[in-house]
Amino acid sequence: MTEESGSKRHGLIIVNTGNGKGKTTAALGTVFRALGQGFKVAMVQFIKGGWRYGELNAAEKFPNFSLEPMGHGFLKLGDGEPAPEDCALAEKTWAECAARILSDEYDLIVCDEVNYALSYGLLPVSTVLDTLARKPQRLHVILTGRNAPGELIEAADLVTEMREIKHPYQQGIKAQRGIEF
Amino acid sequence: MTEESGSKRHGLIIVNTGNGKGKTTAALGTVFRALGQGFKVAMVQFIKGGWRYGELNAAEKFPNFSLEPMGHGFLKLGDGEPAPEDCALAEKTWAECAARILSDEYDLIVCDEVNYALSYGLLPVSTVLDTLARKPQRLHVILTGRNAPGELIEAADLVTEMREIKHPYQQGIKAQRGIEF
Repeated sequence: MTEESGSKRHGLIIVNTGNGKGKTTAALGTVFRALGQGFKVAMVQFIKGGWRYGELNAAEKFPNFSLEPMGHGFLKLGDGEPAPEDCALAEKTWAECAARILSDEYDLIVCDEVNYALSYGLLPVSTVLDTLARKPQRLHVILTGRNAPGELIEAADLVTEMREIKHPYQQGIKAQRGIEF
Repeated sequence: MTEESGSKRHGLIIVNTGNGKGKTTAALGTVFRALGQGFKVAMVQFIKGGWRYGELNAAEKFPNFSLEPMGHGFLKLGDGEPAPEDCALAEKTWAECAARILSDEYDLIVCDEVNYALSYGLLPVSTVLDTLARKPQRLHVILTGRNAPGELIEAADLVTEMREIKHPYQQGIKAQRGIEF
């Protein structure tokens, strides 16, 4: 394994999928590493309530990390057929991602839980693929969430499936501060 | 999913295993979140050269994060039978972990790539399980690396397997600064 040299950076399309823990958390670890390299990083969240106190607080130490949009454009997790307003929210949130992706102002952009919107049909895969095809060469993009569509996996450079082997909720242990939020 | 209440914290034993990316990176994301909660965190590395510029630089922003030991006790990845000096190094590095685990001074301790030492027989699983059985109630411990032994999975609260679906080296793309180091 060699490191990138003076050659132009090859920005990666990275997908973290699967039913286990660690999809968003691994993205957050990559953000941490990238911030340490002085990268400009944005993270856009598709699921309402996804921001947790721990990462918000830690993120404040890094002026080169933006967590917008904070107050709008989030989806709620729910059952049943997607409602038109859910689709509109997903499209709006993707527009926030796309504007950042195409701005060429960032080194790393995380589209957190976008796979949820794709797999529930709230957002056409073609919309996402079209933007990714036009991304700046240097930009890394991480797309997280369960059930990443095959076309996205096809377009990606690095795909990891996080599989749940054992989960504490199975044993009645509650979510732990500082670990899960 | 409910959050922990005023009840005593239930420190988790967390295992990140599998052949994919994201085992250490997800641990780093959890560290980031925990630091934001004001937790005291230590990360002990079993593989030489595991520290990368990105996380070292980001870690400096958090006085409650310790990365020791930095200069000794590391294993080299290699083929063949474990040499006695490799076993001694693994035992010494575990002793560093165990001292921190049993000190009751930390909220989260990451034993990074310890599963490598376990699966290669450099360190007895019983040694690790014995320490974990005596850990402070409030302490979370994350153990990363491929091929986590069954007894460790049995003792853990949360186990995730990171599976490689697609990797950029397959396409001849080099390791990228800020993403992988």
